[in-house]
Amino acid sequence: MENKHTAPRLTTLCYAEKEDAYLMLHRVKKVNDVNKDKWIGIGGHFEAGESPEECIRREALEETGLTLGELRFRGIVTFCFRESEHVYDGVSWDDWEYMCLFTATVDDTELSECNEGDLEWVKKDRIEELNLWEGDKVFFRLLSEGEPFFSLKLCYHGDKLMRTELNGEENTMQ
Amino acid sequence: MENKHTAPRLTTLCYAEKEDAYLMLHRVKKVNDVNKDKWIGIGGHFEAGESPEECIRREALEETGLTLGELRFRGIVTFCFRESEHVYDGVSWDDWEYMCLFTATVDDTELSECNEGDLEWVKKDRIEELNLWEGDKVFFRLLSEGEPFFSLKLCYHGDKLMRTELNGEENTMQ
Repeated sequence: MENKHTAPRLTTLCYAEKEDAYLMLHRVKKVNDVNKDKWIGIGGHFEAGESPEECIRREALEETGLTLGELRFRGIVTFCFRESEHVYDGVSWDDWEYMCLFTATVDDTELSECNEGDLEWVKKDRIEELNLWEGDKVFFRLLSEGEPFFSLKLCYHGDKLMRTELNGEENTMQ
Repeated sequence: MENKHTAPRLTTLCYAEKEDAYLMLHRVKKVNDVNKDKWIGIGGHFEAGESPEECIRREALEETGLTLGELRFRGIVTFCFRESEHVYDGVSWDDWEYMCLFTATVDDTELSECNEGDLEWVKKDRIEELNLWEGDKVFFRLLSEGEPFFSLKLCYHGDKLMRTELNGEENTMQ
């Protein structure tokens, strides 16, 4: 088993909470951004030796100026991406990523300028009106249902969500 | 944030359960094995595009011949390893790894030969008598306390556990 080491990306994502709103990032500032014009949470890639909690606290501070308060580790998401709509062969993907998903309280709410997009507190019941990735709507549904911890697999061909598995089982909740 | 991509190892570990015993692997067969003579769970590295559940089911089948039944995703462990006892600088590590920890039921109990060591069902109340990694004793304690999900960071200098964090906080439970 030791020789099968490959290198996916490892990231964190957080929905910071304030009353009945989540902090969302509207990705309008970067050129060639896979998230261009989408609304996403805050977060980013792990640095050497960071735990998921260390990574998300650093990323939140860098992107928003906010110090996160209490963190809740809500889930792990396995993303598989493929450029085109080739049939899924069940084995290899062009690109894949593991993302640790958190929600968090914040102690202060003064946002700094973010060079990746515009930050905005969006009421939870308005989130689905935003331009979201299809799979992100699945997160919000799981979070709103109060699921204590989930492992979700999302397979995309381009922008299109082809396949969803929840806790290792095929998922039809989309 | 996108340009900080580095490549830790990504693995799964599972303690399969049968009545009051866990399935343990005594690593006595491989030369130059970092786990030499230690007792560990079953598991291994992710292959391209696998979810944590797919990885652990494949590894369990390959290593033991067992088909795992119901999986419980119990925690994420961030491991930091350093060869020598240099002072931890808080930034970079020689080597790090993220491990998804499961417990699982098994439907059959007939074990196949494992080329990585000897497989044995060990009663839960005898586990601590085995030659275990120091940090693995922390897992067993968290599992026995029924913690629903935990994020644990373990920093080793060689064999010695230097630092433990539980859910992002310094942990003194060792």
